[in-house]
Amino acid sequence: MYSLLGAVFFWWVEREYEQELIKQEKLFLDHLRNDTISRLKRLLLKSIFYRKILLWYESQLIKLKMTKGLEWDMWGALFYVGTILTTIGYGNIAPRTSGGRALSIVYAIFGIPLVLAILSEFGRMFTTFVSNQRIAETRKRQKLWDKRRRNYVRTIPIWLALFICIGWICICAGLFCLWETHWSYFTSLYFFFISLSTIGLGDVVPDHPHMLILMFWLVIIGLSIVSMLISVIQIKFEEWLYHLMIRMQVSFL
Amino acid sequence: MYSLLGAVFFWWVEREYEQELIKQEKLFLDHLRNDTISRLKRLLLKSIFYRKILLWYESQLIKLKMTKGLEWDMWGALFYVGTILTTIGYGNIAPRTSGGRALSIVYAIFGIPLVLAILSEFGRMFTTFVSNQRIAETRKRQKLWDKRRRNYVRTIPIWLALFICIGWICICAGLFCLWETHWSYFTSLYFFFISLSTIGLGDVVPDHPHMLILMFWLVIIGLSIVSMLISVIQIKFEEWLYHLMIRMQVSFL
Repeated sequence: MYSLLGAVFFWWVEREYEQELIKQEKLFLDHLRNDTISRLKRLLLKSIFYRKILLWYESQLIKLKMTKGLEWDMWGALFYVGTILTTIGYGNIAPRTSGGRALSIVYAIFGIPLVLAILSEFGRMFTTFVSNQRIAETRKRQKLWDKRRRNYVRTIPIWLALFICIGWICICAGLFCLWETHWSYFTSLYFFFISLSTIGLGDVVPDHPHMLILMFWLVIIGLSIVSMLISVIQIKFEEWLYHLMIRMQVSFL
Repeated sequence: MYSLLGAVFFWWVEREYEQELIKQEKLFLDHLRNDTISRLKRLLLKSIFYRKILLWYESQLIKLKMTKGLEWDMWGALFYVGTILTTIGYGNIAPRTSGGRALSIVYAIFGIPLVLAILSEFGRMFTTFVSNQRIAETRKRQKLWDKRRRNYVRTIPIWLALFICIGWICICAGLFCLWETHWSYFTSLYFFFISLSTIGLGDVVPDHPHMLILMFWLVIIGLSIVSMLISVIQIKFEEWLYHLMIRMQVSFL
């Protein structure tokens, strides 16, 4: 809900300015072309100067061109909101107006803590689910240890969490490999790792904005798995520290 | 140390490939120019076709051009390592070779937890420092309450942490406003906010790589302040929850 609302806001702020920018670019490009043609005409016979003119034309073009990226339609805006809230920030779509930038700041201040809370909640739910599964399975295999196992609810071993995390990345990478035909499996893996670590360099990004929205669900599930992994590691580390302290106390006494 | 080591690695992996890419681009551009000139010569008299040729030339140029960004020299590599470790990921410099990408993944897996630990340690040190300052000041003003104040060590009020955080952003934005002459104060503020929230869109980035290294220190200090702010809020929230539970217990009894 919050992200939909944000998407509408950003779309509204950025849309108009982009349209104007595109119009301006077209106008300028037209002007540049005519200018170059008239220059060429004047120098019809001195072909040595052609090169010079082309160089000048190129340098003008570079100044003019907008950075390529997504357009600010509704899908783009939704994608932008997603990149901000998860703090990934690919940067293939970014606000150009001051209004959009100010809105980003305000939006992020309220949105990021919200998303972090939701993710950790997802992570906890996931941990409970997996540990319940595990308990049920263990119960099947050995009915005797039933009562002892009960104390172990709400935590899963690190290797399982790590395995789920890596498995998720591999599966998602495989899916993207199928969807984006020009990606190799390694590129896909690299993309997912950069996303899940919330680095978000933005050098490798899927092409279609519709797919990006779908991708976000995969990334959000992935992020909650990572959050689960971190919390599991933290718990184990604290346990380990606790045992270490007890052992030290024992050795001192 | 770890970041320096990483910078050297990345520089070594990416440097050669970039040089080759630049050479290739130059070659292709030369070819493109000659091609265009010969086409122009052939059509010397039919000036209507000039426009068409230019259009073709433009489309070829777009395909060819590398994305602009930092070069992979030592400074660039150091900057890249910084963007990865802090999970900001501006994306104005990114690996192009598979080797570089694989190295990024491995490097990030070990580096990010390390940096997070360091940042939280910085945040704790900062909290201790600020609370000590406050205690010293309070002691000066009122010597009577000395003993009561002692219990309050290791925590500072939220408003102070918030004030320090906002103050830091404003000061840094002001500094960058002076350094980067073509930035407005708002742009500078926007850039700092996007960096400190680790979103890192990369649409606004300082030009000089030397300045980027200096900037990183400011960002790292800012990140530890943010980490302090979060921990302070967390402590207050837990305290509040604890008081709430006690009050509920009292009302039930």
